[in-house]
Amino acid sequence: MSGNTYGKLFKVTTYGESHGKALGCIIDGCPPQLEISAEEIQIELDRRKPGQSDVTTQRKESDRVEILSGVFEGKTTGTPISLIIYNEDQRSQDYSNLQDTFRPNHADITYQAKYGHRDYRGGGRSSARETAMRVAAGTVAKKYLNALGIKATGYVSQIGPIKADLINPSEAQTNKYFFADSKKIKDLDTLFAELIQEGNSVGAKLGVCIENCPVGLGEPVFDKLDADLAKAIMSINAVKSVSIGNVDGILDLKGSEIRDESVKMALPQTMQVEFLVGSLMVIL
Amino acid sequence: MSGNTYGKLFKVTTYGESHGKALGCIIDGCPPQLEISAEEIQIELDRRKPGQSDVTTQRKESDRVEILSGVFEGKTTGTPISLIIYNEDQRSQDYSNLQDTFRPNHADITYQAKYGHRDYRGGGRSSARETAMRVAAGTVAKKYLNALGIKATGYVSQIGPIKADLINPSEAQTNKYFFADSKKIKDLDTLFAELIQEGNSVGAKLGVCIENCPVGLGEPVFDKLDADLAKAIMSINAVKSVSIGNVDGILDLKGSEIRDESVKMALPQTMQVEFLVGSLMVIL
Amino acid sequence: MSGNTYGKLFKVTTYGESHGKALGCIIDGCPPQLEISAEEIQIELDRRKPGQSDVTTQRKESDRVEILSGVFEGKTTGTPISLIIYNEDQRSQDYSNLQDTFRPNHADITYQAKYGHRDYRGGGRSSARETAMRVAAGTVAKKYLNALGIKATGYVSQIGPIKADLINPSEAQTNKYFFADSKKIKDLDTLFAELIQEGNSVGAKLGVCIENCPVGLGEPVFDKLDADLAKAIMSINAVKSVSIGNVDGILDLKGSEIRDESVKMALPQTMQVEFLVGSLMVIL
Amino acid sequence: MSGNTYGKLFKVTTYGESHGKALGCIIDGCPPQLEISAEEIQIELDRRKPGQSDVTTQRKESDRVEILSGVFEGKTTGTPISLIIYNEDQRSQDYSNLQDTFRPNHADITYQAKYGHRDYRGGGRSSARETAMRVAAGTVAKKYLNALGIKATGYVSQIGPIKADLINPSEAQTNKYFFADSKKIKDLDTLFAELIQEGNSVGAKLGVCIENCPVGLGEPVFDKLDADLAKAIMSINAVKSVSIGNVDGILDLKGSEIRDESVKMALPQTMQVEFLVGSLMVIL
Repeated sequence: MSGNTYGKLFKVTTYGESHGKALGCIIDGCPPQLEISAEEIQIELDRRKPGQSDVTTQRKESDRVEILSGVFEGKTTGTPISLIIYNEDQRSQDYSNLQDTFRPNHADITYQAKYGHRDYRGGGRSSARETAMRVAAGTVAKKYLNALGIKATGYVSQIGPIKADLINPSEAQTNKYFFADSKKIKDLDTLFAELIQEGNSVGAKLGVCIENCPVGLGEPVFDKLDADLAKAIMSINAVKSVSIGNVDGILDLKGSEIRDESVKMALPQTMQVEFLVGSLMVIL
Repeated sequence: MSGNTYGKLFKVTTYGESHGKALGCIIDGCPPQLEISAEEIQIELDRRKPGQSDVTTQRKESDRVEILSGVFEGKTTGTPISLIIYNEDQRSQDYSNLQDTFRPNHADITYQAKYGHRDYRGGGRSSARETAMRVAAGTVAKKYLNALGIKATGYVSQIGPIKADLINPSEAQTNKYFFADSKKIKDLDTLFAELIQEGNSVGAKLGVCIENCPVGLGEPVFDKLDADLAKAIMSINAVKSVSIGNVDGILDLKGSEIRDESVKMALPQTMQVEFLVGSLMVIL
Repeated sequence: MSGNTYGKLFKVTTYGESHGKALGCIIDGCPPQLEISAEEIQIELDRRKPGQSDVTTQRKESDRVEILSGVFEGKTTGTPISLIIYNEDQRSQDYSNLQDTFRPNHADITYQAKYGHRDYRGGGRSSARETAMRVAAGTVAKKYLNALGIKATGYVSQIGPIKADLINPSEAQTNKYFFADSKKIKDLDTLFAELIQEGNSVGAKLGVCIENCPVGLGEPVFDKLDADLAKAIMSINAVKSVSIGNVDGILDLKGSEIRDESVKMALPQTMQVEFLVGSLMVIL
Repeated sequence: MSGNTYGKLFKVTTYGESHGKALGCIIDGCPPQLEISAEEIQIELDRRKPGQSDVTTQRKESDRVEILSGVFEGKTTGTPISLIIYNEDQRSQDYSNLQDTFRPNHADITYQAKYGHRDYRGGGRSSARETAMRVAAGTVAKKYLNALGIKATGYVSQIGPIKADLINPSEAQTNKYFFADSKKIKDLDTLFAELIQEGNSVGAKLGVCIENCPVGLGEPVFDKLDADLAKAIMSINAVKSVSIGNVDGILDLKGSEIRDESVKMALPQTMQVEFLVGSLMVIL
C-alpha cells in the first residue's frame, strides 16, 4: 500500500534509496506565481548535510538539487514541482556486509520482513537520507508560509543530559550544535569530545517555534493542526515523542494553575512543537 | 475543508454536536463476516461514560448506541456500518450563558474565529463527547484485531504528581481510576478528595499496550504505524504529547546502552504508546 | 476497502440498505453560514421519489429527511452535516425469495461473490435507493453553487427510441417524464402504455446543463472536472456511458470543422454532460 | 489544489511539461518482488511514440525511460518506483509565438486563466506528452495484472466515419492504425491520404478489452470499477465520452431483450470499455 505522500492540498510524494540512482520528490498543489530557485533550496539542504562539522555523522553527501518541472521563468506554475538529487556515490561495497546482517535499531529487518526483498545498501529506503527531500519540499512550503508572514524556527534544546536553561531559537542559528542556549556550548564540546572518543552517541530534544500562526489552521476533528504536525514529525526516523508546547512538569500543575496561565494568552499565535529523538546524533 | 475522517482502508467518519440531535459515525471498509452487535459496542461506551464514579465529570450521558446499516443477521456485510447515539438531553439552558463568553482552554473561540458561526451549547462539535464515536468505532476495529490475535490494553500511569511505580496494564481494569499500579489507589483517593474539595483538576499520563503486533504494519515513509498512531492520539481533545515506548530518561542513555537493550528484543511484537493529557479529569 | 465517499473538499459519505433501518450520509467540508433546512432537501427528494406517476417504479417510499448535525439556528456551522431517512417499510417478506436466487442484471450476485454475505432484501446496499442520499447531499451542494451563480438543470433527452428533436432543459420541469422536448409527450404516452402492458422497460439518455460554470474548475491532470463528473455519474446504478457535450455524429466531423465551431466559443461557461442508462425505468 | 495522482493502493503521481527538463512519475504501492526492467517499459513507450508512421503526429520524441528507485536487482522492493524521461529537445523557438496566442481547442487558455502563469512551450503541462507517463506506469501495472492472469488489449474501432464491422482486438496489433478490423485498412489509407493532403484530422473511437477480470473488483458505491475506469479515461486529453460495453443502439432494446442477453452471461469476466476522442489524430 502507498505511504510516501504527505499533505492534502500541498501534497509531497518522495522516492529514493540512499545508494540508488537518485532521491526526489513531487510537490503537487503548490500555489502558482511563487518565486523559487534551486539555489534557495540548496541553502537549506546544505544546512541539513551531514559531515559539515566534527559533531555529526561524517558521511559525505554533496547533494545538488535540480528543479525538473513546475517552475517556469523563475516562478511556480501551479503544476507539479519535481525536485531531484542524484546520488554521486552509488558504490555499495561499504554496505555489502549488511546483506545478511541487520544493524541493531535500524529498519532493515522490518523491510525484509514486510517486503521479502530490500535494497540493503546503506539502509536503502529506510535511510535517514530520505529526509533530504523533506527539507527540499519544506523549503518550498516555507517560502509560501513566509510570504503569509508565518515564520518557523527550529532549534535543539537538549542533547543527552545537557539542557538549555532558557530557549532562544535565534541563538540556535549561531552554533554548530543548533543549540538554543549558547551558554551551554562549552558543556556540549566536552560531551562530544567524550562521545567521539568512545565512538558513542546520544539522543536529543528538538523544537520548532512557529510565529504568527493564523487562528483556525487545521481541520477538526481528526485533522487538527496538532495532529497533522504530530504525524509528520513522528514519521521522521528516530523520533519517539512529540509534544505541543513544553509539557515538562505539566502534571505537577492543577487545572486552575494552567487556566490562569492560558487565560492571559487568549488566542495565542505563537506555537511551539517539541520532539525527542532517541540517539539521532551518530558519531562514526 | 473536510477533516472528520480517519483511516484509509478501515475508514471512520464522525459527526455530531454535544447538544445536537445525535452523534454518529460511518465505518467504511470493515471486512465482511465479522460478528458484531450493538450490545458489544455498548459495553465499551459504558466504560467511557462520564459520571460513573465520583472522580470523573458528573455529566449524565445515557448513551444507547444503535447500528443502522452494514450488519445483517449479526454479521458485517462489507458495506458501511452506521452507528448512532441520540442525545437524550438536548436542553441548552445550562450553556446559554456561553453564547458570548468563551471558556478558557476550550476550542469554542477557535471555532468562532474559523467558521464565524458555531453551536455554542456544551462545546458543540468541539466537546469531548465527540470521542464517544471513537470508542464505538474502536470497538468494531478491536473485534477485528482480536480475531487476528492482536490485543490492546489501555491504562493510566500517572495522575497529577502520582505515578505508577510499576506499570501493570491488567491492574488498570480493577479500579475506578483505571490506574496501572493498584498500590497507589490510596494516594489517588487522597488527591481526588483534595481536588473535589477545591473544585480543581489535574492532568494525566495514559498508555496503550499492544500485544502480538505483527511486524511490518504501517507504510513507510510518512504513514509509519508510529506516525499514524501519533496523529490519531494527538487529535483527541486535551492530548498534548505522544510517545512511542517509555521515553522517560531516554536522553540520559548513550546510544550503546540503548542498542544493548534493544538487541535483545530483535523484532519486538509488543508495542507501547504513551500520551499525556493536560487536565483531562474535570471535577465539577 | 472503503469506497463510499465522494469528493475531496466537499466530501460525501453514504450508508444504508434499501430495507435496513435507515439511509444516511455525512457531508464533510460544507462551508459555514449557508442557510439550509430539511424542507429544502425534502423538495428535491420528493422529485426523485418513485411511485409518483404511473410511468416509474411503483414502490412506495415516503422518505422524510432529518438533519442530525452540522446545522445550527438554520445555518451550516462548518462541521459535518448528517442527514438521515428512516426506512418505514422494513418488511422483508417481499424479497425473501431472493435469498438464494439472483435477479438478472442486478449487483446481488457480485456482492455475494465479493463479500460472501449480503443483505438480500431489495438489493440491500446495491439498491438504487442508495441514490436518495446523492440527491440529499446534492441539494446542499446545489445551494452552495447557486449562491455562486452556478446553475445545473437536469433533463431526459431520449427514452427508448423516442428522442428530443430540440433539447430545452426548462421544458423538462413541466412533464412527468422530465423530457426536454414537450412535443414528444404524446409519443411517450404511447410507448409507456405499451411497456406497462408488456411489463417491460427501456433505457434512456439524460443530460445535465451547467450554466455559468467558472473557468478553471477541476485539477489537472487526473482530477479534471470532466473526469470527476464522469466518475460520479458512472457510479450511478445502470449508467453505462458518459459524455462531455453532445458527441452524436462527432466522428463525421473533421478537426477543422470542430475547430471552427469551438473558436466561436472561446472560454465556454456552459457545460453539458450527457449519460445513458440501460433500462433505468423499471415498470412493475 | 493537487490533482496529479491516480489510484489509492497502486498510486501514480506524474509531473513534467512537454518542453521542460523531464517528464516523470512515482508509482507508490506497487507490490514487491515483481520483475521489471526499463527495457520492458521502453517497448510500450515506443508503441506510443508519435512520428513512427505517416498517419500520426510527426513530432520527434526519442523517449528513453530510466528507473531511478524502487527496483533492486531487477525486482520491485515495495518502495516508490520513480521513472524519468529527459526531454532531449527543450528548444522553445518553435512555440514562442504562442506566448500571447492561444491554440483553439487546447487547454492553454484555461491554464492561463486558472494559474495566471504557464509554461506556454508546446502546451507545457497540458500537452498530450503527459500521457507518456501513463503508459510507463501502466506497463508496471500491466506486469502485475498479467501475473494474475488478467489481460487488457487496446484497439481502435472507428476513425472518422470508418467503422470496424467486426471488432477483433488481436488484429489491432498488426497494422499501423491499431485498427481492430483489417478489412478496413484500404479505406483508412484513402481517408488518411485525403487528411494529409488537407492538413486536417478526425476523431476516433477506441476500446480496451479486459479478459479474465475477477468478479468483485472495485468498491461500491462511488468507487465502482466502472466509475474508476471512466474517470481515468476521461482524464486523457481529447477524450469526450466513455462507455462500459458497446452501447450503440442500446436504447432500441427493451429491458426484456437486454435481460435475455445478459442472463446467458451470468458473471461475465470479460469487460469492454470504449471511449471516443474528438480529433485525436493530429496530422501536421
